[in-house]
Amino acid sequence: MTLIADAIKQVDKSIEQALGRSPKQIAPLAGHLLDSRGQGVRAKLLLTAASNNEQIHDHAIKAASAIEIFHLATLVHDDVIDDSPIRRGLPSVQSKFGKKHAVICGDYLFGLSLSMVADIYQPYTEFGEKFVKNIRLICLGELQQLSNANNLDLPFFDYLRIINGKTAVLFHVATFGGAIISKYHGNLNERQAKQIGRLGTYFGIIFQILDDCKDYTLDTKTAKKPTNTDIANGVVNLPLIMAMSKDMRLGDKVRAAMATREYGDIVKEVSLLGLTPTMDIAYRYAAKCRVILQEIPHLMAKEFEQLLNTQFSLASKNTEQHVTK
Amino acid sequence: MTLIADAIKQVDKSIEQALGRSPKQIAPLAGHLLDSRGQGVRAKLLLTAASNNEQIHDHAIKAASAIEIFHLATLVHDDVIDDSPIRRGLPSVQSKFGKKHAVICGDYLFGLSLSMVADIYQPYTEFGEKFVKNIRLICLGELQQLSNANNLDLPFFDYLRIINGKTAVLFHVATFGGAIISKYHGNLNERQAKQIGRLGTYFGIIFQILDDCKDYTLDTKTAKKPTNTDIANGVVNLPLIMAMSKDMRLGDKVRAAMATREYGDIVKEVSLLGLTPTMDIAYRYAAKCRVILQEIPHLMAKEFEQLLNTQFSLASKNTEQHVTK
Repeated sequence: MTLIADAIKQVDKSIEQALGRSPKQIAPLAGHLLDSRGQGVRAKLLLTAASNNEQIHDHAIKAASAIEIFHLATLVHDDVIDDSPIRRGLPSVQSKFGKKHAVICGDYLFGLSLSMVADIYQPYTEFGEKFVKNIRLICLGELQQLSNANNLDLPFFDYLRIINGKTAVLFHVATFGGAIISKYHGNLNERQAKQIGRLGTYFGIIFQILDDCKDYTLDTKTAKKPTNTDIANGVVNLPLIMAMSKDMRLGDKVRAAMATREYGDIVKEVSLLGLTPTMDIAYRYAAKCRVILQEIPHLMAKEFEQLLNTQFSLASKNTEQHVTK
Repeated sequence: MTLIADAIKQVDKSIEQALGRSPKQIAPLAGHLLDSRGQGVRAKLLLTAASNNEQIHDHAIKAASAIEIFHLATLVHDDVIDDSPIRRGLPSVQSKFGKKHAVICGDYLFGLSLSMVADIYQPYTEFGEKFVKNIRLICLGELQQLSNANNLDLPFFDYLRIINGKTAVLFHVATFGGAIISKYHGNLNERQAKQIGRLGTYFGIIFQILDDCKDYTLDTKTAKKPTNTDIANGVVNLPLIMAMSKDMRLGDKVRAAMATREYGDIVKEVSLLGLTPTMDIAYRYAAKCRVILQEIPHLMAKEFEQLLNTQFSLASKNTEQHVTK
């Protein structure tokens, strides 16, 4: 088993323990959340940034667990905000336990993750501060997304600002956190740590762009959430923005679809026009990542490269299948 | 102007600035929250614990502002959880801006307050840790309250556990935080700081018990929130518990009132039977406070005594008026 894979097992165990020790009112919600765990990409990024050739410090296990629990908290609140019935293939906490419990459960998980960060605040104050100070940016991303619902004129750079808040900020906190741990233990210098923080931001942007594509390319079962629903939900994603930039009349068609609530044709059209240029943008961010990878220790860079490829191989396969259908 | 009153003005200004600097999506919600500010009792407690004869350190202003903003966050989420239409005499954030914005606004304020705590984490790590680690207890209090809705068999000690989470924990964090700042600057010793933390807990219990009484003694206008509604909302408060302990048949009457949703008579009966023994319990906690006040510097003790008396004078006047009606 590789170093990272082994560490991820430890993170899973640590999350299970932390949620398992939660009080009896939280336990059923926590169990439900554990059943619907994601791939842990944020933890993997943190652990990779914190790794050297031989080992991953216990503090990195704790930091990665804190990031994943914080992410769970945001998912629980997102489901309240979006009234989502399904999350990762299971009923959302709100739909299973009600709005009241979902709001409190999210708050509890925020508290739990912050408390784990507090345990390692010393000597990694830079990480603790970054974590805490970025919570507002995450909320801001959500708010910007809300206020741009159905905004077909959303400029590309505003789109980037939204996905930065809703996804890339936490990826940035993850890689930066791992890098700060590495720096403290002498494995990275100041500049490398900063660059690895930027790497996380780029990685998050790619992750969200690929996730946008999944709304068009995957079925509900594979995606473990409803797909082909972004446009219907007023979410202006990148394939839609790119498709509209290719065909000026598409905006009116989307508006017509919104009026009749018939989205089948428009989803097909956006897929055909928008997916390829969207993937091009994702590849451009991957190129930015690879510039940074040349500056950091070889083994760490190799692990990041692998993580990047995994995300792409899945998404591009789906995209190709779909575009050529 | 006294030292504390002057510091409270600074806290108000600091909160206004922090909310004023919030992004344009938060600004209208923040403005609305500023319009419905409470008496700032948590800030006053922190400042009192942080005061010496001559001055209050800037760090205490920041800590007090963080506590008040955190409190605002809990109020915003409480309104979502309880579906309250009114808060402090104005429409709640949820009823004015919708559930989605209320959830995010609460999260944003959590982030803002924690970020202010991070600014003074050094050298007051004990305060920072206490703040962060107690978030879960606050959520737990909310959850216990939810799961004990309509539970007329709620034991007194479970009631205490609930109000500890929903009110006393944050009072505890406030006085403890102030005391840690005082201790660092040589104005309190270790034992005094701990005792002042306990003082906060007792103060919070008293505050919540008096607040319970207000549901019976105040009209909606004076209380700036709906009153005579706890029983109807399934909230088992202390006057109800005490009234039921005085008259064993009262529980059945309450159940009958819940079935017919006619609460007028039962509210009167609970007032007559329950308010006096409830106030007795509040006085007992005040006595516990006064034991601690003997251990701490005289001027600080005098300020705490005044804060205590202010709470009581208001509540007991209302209670007497009501019991003798």
